[in-house]
Amino acid sequence: MFEKKETRPEPAKQRLTSLAELGEFGLIERLTREVKRFHPETLKGVGDDAAVIDMGEKVLLVSTDLLIEGIHFDLTYMPLMHLGYKAVVVNVSDIAAMNGIPAQVTVSIALSSRFSAEAIDEIYAGIRLACDKYKVDLVGGDTSTSTTGLMLSLTILGTVNKGDEVYRSGAQEGDLLCVTGDLGSAYMGLLLLEREKSVFKANPAMQPELSGFDYQIGRQLRPEARTDIRNMMVGTGLKPTAMIDISDGLSSDLLHICKQSNLGCNLFEAKIPIDEQTRELALEFNIIPVVAALSGGEDYELLFTISQKDYDKVKDISGISIIGHMTAASQGKNMITPDGHVVPLTAQGWDGMKPER
Amino acid sequence: MFEKKETRPEPAKQRLTSLAELGEFGLIERLTREVKRFHPETLKGVGDDAAVIDMGEKVLLVSTDLLIEGIHFDLTYMPLMHLGYKAVVVNVSDIAAMNGIPAQVTVSIALSSRFSAEAIDEIYAGIRLACDKYKVDLVGGDTSTSTTGLMLSLTILGTVNKGDEVYRSGAQEGDLLCVTGDLGSAYMGLLLLEREKSVFKANPAMQPELSGFDYQIGRQLRPEARTDIRNMMVGTGLKPTAMIDISDGLSSDLLHICKQSNLGCNLFEAKIPIDEQTRELALEFNIIPVVAALSGGEDYELLFTISQKDYDKVKDISGISIIGHMTAASQGKNMITPDGHVVPLTAQGWDGMKPER
Repeated sequence: MFEKKETRPEPAKQRLTSLAELGEFGLIERLTREVKRFHPETLKGVGDDAAVIDMGEKVLLVSTDLLIEGIHFDLTYMPLMHLGYKAVVVNVSDIAAMNGIPAQVTVSIALSSRFSAEAIDEIYAGIRLACDKYKVDLVGGDTSTSTTGLMLSLTILGTVNKGDEVYRSGAQEGDLLCVTGDLGSAYMGLLLLEREKSVFKANPAMQPELSGFDYQIGRQLRPEARTDIRNMMVGTGLKPTAMIDISDGLSSDLLHICKQSNLGCNLFEAKIPIDEQTRELALEFNIIPVVAALSGGEDYELLFTISQKDYDKVKDISGISIIGHMTAASQGKNMITPDGHVVPLTAQGWDGMKPER
Repeated sequence: MFEKKETRPEPAKQRLTSLAELGEFGLIERLTREVKRFHPETLKGVGDDAAVIDMGEKVLLVSTDLLIEGIHFDLTYMPLMHLGYKAVVVNVSDIAAMNGIPAQVTVSIALSSRFSAEAIDEIYAGIRLACDKYKVDLVGGDTSTSTTGLMLSLTILGTVNKGDEVYRSGAQEGDLLCVTGDLGSAYMGLLLLEREKSVFKANPAMQPELSGFDYQIGRQLRPEARTDIRNMMVGTGLKPTAMIDISDGLSSDLLHICKQSNLGCNLFEAKIPIDEQTRELALEFNIIPVVAALSGGEDYELLFTISQKDYDKVKDISGISIIGHMTAASQGKNMITPDGHVVPLTAQGWDGMKPER
């Protein structure tokens, strides 16, 4: 056996590092810095939307996500079927972000005895619906009781022809920065649901006022993955130089591309696509709309860079906005406001280690 | 969005099915009965130690396991480094049970703020140690806080040349039933640790009496996967007809082979390999030793069947016991006692949905 070690979180003989202090990305960096590789087939490990494994003509893409009750979702307003659907979608989105085609998924589920088999049926109905929509085979998993709450852990596999996979690290100086769809609506949906939950807690006789906000609520409770973008790009012969999906928020995810590509960026605030109703809703909540887009997260849109020479190919694909360009690292990571001010971009997005936003 | 559904476990309008009632295997069957397949590459989904995916010359093996504090492990006596090691080993064992070679693993971890970064370092030190030993690349994962306790979710990938993978379903009537190593020791290790925990709770001044039982404690806290068996078998040109790893207990896992191969079996009680000290320890605990072997689980030995004509190949491999043979399904699933009585085999092993053994 190993040398003797203490079994409980240690008494405070020395100052220990709290998880919140480290943050999710700090923790991942700390845990993976000494990782060895034994298999030359492992082309990419930790540090992108998916791991990449050489399979001959194709590469295999592997990504995994945890969804934990009380951290990632709240069953007060998240229906179980939507939860199952969303769990698959967020994984499919990671494969889309690598320019891959999703293929198989494993679903592990832990839940306390307060859940009935019928409740789990609901979750799986959502899982199956998403598997049908995105053509993913459910190939395995594990089930367990938990002492408290509900937890889902999914691992998705996808493939793409070797060389067609797109990493966060491939952006070049001068590349155009593009984003699909619009941003910030999922976050405003979350704030709406949280507000109505507080109202209900204060007075259960009150009816929730969610009507008219189907778009924002839908973006939060039932997001979709942008697997359609790949087909449109393949059709026009377009291949992004770098790509990531927007799960943590535009600023945080853009900073990942900058860091991994060793570049800076100029992001034009006025170009960030925001739904008009989402903009009004943000103002009603006293939130600057662009902050919801920059830091809200969970949009599951794709953020990517393309070579300037591909401008003609991208400009005609509907639903894609060009929001900036990549610069040398020495230029910094900047947002340009409508009145021409240069503001440094900072990550304020979702951090799994700091759940209180 | 979907039709409206209730978000909380439903009020008892109709009688709901509890998870304990269904059991883990019942739940898995219920959840996967309507699963569609979209990809012809998916050769095997749910129902074996790993999913099998066609990759051309090779097949990809995929398996996933949850480990949850309070259900699968107890940090009172499970050192964090051992926990990390064991988490990898139980996944490697699933690949070994398919006759595959482990290659990559993803590790997701959720933990409450009572854990420090240094505590996680311990877990990852164990994970890395196992990755080094079994030549597995750590390629990804997810991290999150949890509202309570520690949870690990691992997914392992392995490969084997197409046609060399071994399923639970391949056994033939008349095949010999073989098992590696010895059984029941991990369970006795668990009982020892549980006993000393109770003693300590009653009187914290008492020192645990674990000395002399290194083997049993080691089997529980730091099991190994039998990846060595594949090499020995390849060396002699032996290929099992069916295989499974013993995680739930000999009887439960043997019944899986019977069910999937649509066969019965005769298991000879006297042939079941049990360590001499484990036998004595079981008696001290008022447990019939063979019951520890049949129902204890967590041995991570390999249970497999071979054609009778391969008897000469297997008999010279050290550490393999021939414990019975496969019969027609109509003959039933039986254990033959030393005095010749025929006892029907029933599964009493570990069930993730019924944690109280």
